[in-house]
Amino acid sequence: MRVDAEERPTKDGASHEVSGLTPEFMSAILSALEEGRDDEITQLANALHPADLADLIEKLSNDHRADLVERLRGDLNPNMIAELDESVFGHVVDQLGVEEVAEVVAVMDTDDAVGVIGELGEEEQQEFLEALPEDERALIEQGLAYPEDSAGRLMQRHTVAMADHSSVGQAIDFMRDRDDLPSDFFDVVLVNPAHQPVGTVPLSRIMSSHRNVALTALMVSDMKIIPVRMDQEDVAFLFRQRDLVSASVVDDGGRLVGVITVDDIVDVIHEEHEEDIKRLGGVGEDDDLYSAILHTTRSRFTWLFVHLIAAIIAAYVISFFAATIEQMVALAVLMPIVATMGGTASVQALTVAVRAIAMKELSPSNAVRAIGKEVLVSLFNGVMFALIIGVVAWFWFDNPALGGVIAMAIVINLVVAGLAGSALPVLLDRLGFDPALASSAFLTSITDVVGFYAFLGLASILLL
Amino acid sequence: MRVDAEERPTKDGASHEVSGLTPEFMSAILSALEEGRDDEITQLANALHPADLADLIEKLSNDHRADLVERLRGDLNPNMIAELDESVFGHVVDQLGVEEVAEVVAVMDTDDAVGVIGELGEEEQQEFLEALPEDERALIEQGLAYPEDSAGRLMQRHTVAMADHSSVGQAIDFMRDRDDLPSDFFDVVLVNPAHQPVGTVPLSRIMSSHRNVALTALMVSDMKIIPVRMDQEDVAFLFRQRDLVSASVVDDGGRLVGVITVDDIVDVIHEEHEEDIKRLGGVGEDDDLYSAILHTTRSRFTWLFVHLIAAIIAAYVISFFAATIEQMVALAVLMPIVATMGGTASVQALTVAVRAIAMKELSPSNAVRAIGKEVLVSLFNGVMFALIIGVVAWFWFDNPALGGVIAMAIVINLVVAGLAGSALPVLLDRLGFDPALASSAFLTSITDVVGFYAFLGLASILLL
Repeated sequence: MRVDAEERPTKDGASHEVSGLTPEFMSAILSALEEGRDDEITQLANALHPADLADLIEKLSNDHRADLVERLRGDLNPNMIAELDESVFGHVVDQLGVEEVAEVVAVMDTDDAVGVIGELGEEEQQEFLEALPEDERALIEQGLAYPEDSAGRLMQRHTVAMADHSSVGQAIDFMRDRDDLPSDFFDVVLVNPAHQPVGTVPLSRIMSSHRNVALTALMVSDMKIIPVRMDQEDVAFLFRQRDLVSASVVDDGGRLVGVITVDDIVDVIHEEHEEDIKRLGGVGEDDDLYSAILHTTRSRFTWLFVHLIAAIIAAYVISFFAATIEQMVALAVLMPIVATMGGTASVQALTVAVRAIAMKELSPSNAVRAIGKEVLVSLFNGVMFALIIGVVAWFWFDNPALGGVIAMAIVINLVVAGLAGSALPVLLDRLGFDPALASSAFLTSITDVVGFYAFLGLASILLL
Repeated sequence: MRVDAEERPTKDGASHEVSGLTPEFMSAILSALEEGRDDEITQLANALHPADLADLIEKLSNDHRADLVERLRGDLNPNMIAELDESVFGHVVDQLGVEEVAEVVAVMDTDDAVGVIGELGEEEQQEFLEALPEDERALIEQGLAYPEDSAGRLMQRHTVAMADHSSVGQAIDFMRDRDDLPSDFFDVVLVNPAHQPVGTVPLSRIMSSHRNVALTALMVSDMKIIPVRMDQEDVAFLFRQRDLVSASVVDDGGRLVGVITVDDIVDVIHEEHEEDIKRLGGVGEDDDLYSAILHTTRSRFTWLFVHLIAAIIAAYVISFFAATIEQMVALAVLMPIVATMGGTASVQALTVAVRAIAMKELSPSNAVRAIGKEVLVSLFNGVMFALIIGVVAWFWFDNPALGGVIAMAIVINLVVAGLAGSALPVLLDRLGFDPALASSAFLTSITDVVGFYAFLGLASILLL
């Protein structure tokens, strides 16, 4: 047997095939846009998969985008519209007008339509809804009435439900007769006379059984049923944990009101990860390549300002020890090392804790053990780095006592870093806040203050 | 119409229902384990969904875990085994022995079996394979022969393929006759006589059509076909971009060799996000709640050591200006502010760039525009913070020239931060490295050095 674990999967070469927007395609369409070769632009754009076309529209500069979107007027693809990024979708609506876009939204699945309209401001939402046909409009309004980020916003309203006493043959006949089936579905939901789901039957099981088999004999009955107001993050957790492809959504009375399919959940997972990674990095949710420069500047400013306050507090701590630093300038040289090591260790502990909370691995039942582990890890690393940095400082400034002082400060700061980095997100989570809010600002301000205080304080007592 | 965008989805209350491991359940099973009430332990564990049982085994302390796993001997659930975290799976195999676990792996779908066995060391893999029945073993060995993180490792080997001239009726009869169908499938793959896929037909379309309809009339033909060596990250991108539920995998000759379903992709997406967030946070991939303390300590040590080198370089820069600091100790007080602001701004730019590269939004065609935007954003924020910090420094130390010097240093450091934070990941990506490797260590070392050099250098020229 050969186990080629060392062999790498193809990446560089294959990445060209992954997206339809190959480098060759991009240079072809850019030069066609530059030189206004109309036929070629239309031809190139039409050859793309709708998802690739949406990506192309997002990637273009404002002028080229307006140019291309103008050419799509009268020929918009609903799947392309459904894939557009929020802020780019706003541009397209502004350019083409609500009426034109509403025509396309009217033929989308209800979950996609709710998603797209939900991204607009309240006024534009109204305009949009008024431009829709009566029956679609009612379903979409009901969808929009559910809180943002809830299961109700994600679900497809057209369900494939059958009475729980049906047979395989009846299911096949029923589906052959219906013409309002959703474009994709994977299960038939069995409901009791009160329209409450009692189980789901995967299509693959129906297809591989004979006509006279009862659907109840094929159904999955320990399925998870999703309350319509459940947070989308919890819905995503269930899909991942249980390897679900679709799930039934019920109202407060337990009645079937919709179905959520995994393609929407994949998008939710991306959104939630994006939120986590951006909070940890100190940028806003809507801070991406496509947001306007002034918007980005303003959103970054807030976060930088929080860091500035933290930095000024740390500077204030240093100013207590100005006299000490004047007598021994080596302290000024070495003090950033103590602060940096603490900051890095606290971000490490934070990252693991935030991730574990998001994955529902860290809960009240094991929080104490997890925090205890972080403190021990930072104690061990604290002792090792105390030795390394102590020796470096000793020989650099030819002063063994200085080495001893920085060694003590490192141990103190790393232990505080491990404790704060793991306990703070747990605490925030327990209080109902997003644990990722605990990000670097809080933590590096704590480790800066503790680091400077410990190092300069010990120095003023022990060295002078 | 009511649009309750302000209303929040239920989270706190509902989170109890999401996982079967409610706080009440956890305290019940913990006290049963403490007090060794055997019947109760077995009863509680058996009532759990396999996915919840896997989560429970992961969450328990080592002693309790060994205790519970012992009770499951002879009654292991394959779905539970498939859900176990890598390091916990290793513990379970060590405790129960290869033979016992192999019996369960033999009845898993091939993709799950390959995933589980692929996590073991080479020696244990061999033991495992030898304990499997001949035919399953051959399929799993073939799966393991594909590179780690490639499509070949993710695919289910049992496919549902039919000749491209078949009808709906033939498809239904074919499936009713087969007994080796995978446990879940969503499409029938149509293949030509060379066994190359020509299209896929979703089961929902087959079910809603009459027996005499040709499958080619129902098929999706612009489907993406996945080469068996494609990187799993690219596979995940395709599933997300195209809202796929399953996709055909082909060998170098274009012949159908397997099918990847979305449930495995959801796991890949989680893995890839985990990798990104952990690289950015400076922790190893296998650094989680369940890794041993010494293992975690060692893995964190490496990263802290890289930061130490960076911090020592920054300290070395400061040491050039020791004489300047001795004359004006206010410089030592203020210098961490310059460094902190630069570090924060660079991490902001890095986060957005790494995320955009992972989402394939940032590519050679728009890299220059993206980097230019970051530089402008940091220039604007640089000017604003220069004003704020300049005034603070001026009044704090009653020295307008000191305010001017720190203002200049802030502008310089923020512009460098925006440039380095966005350009470095783009460059790493272009060179074929993971852009998240550019993380904070590199960047804060750049902004520390530039910040200290600009501030102290300008001060030594202009103030003394």
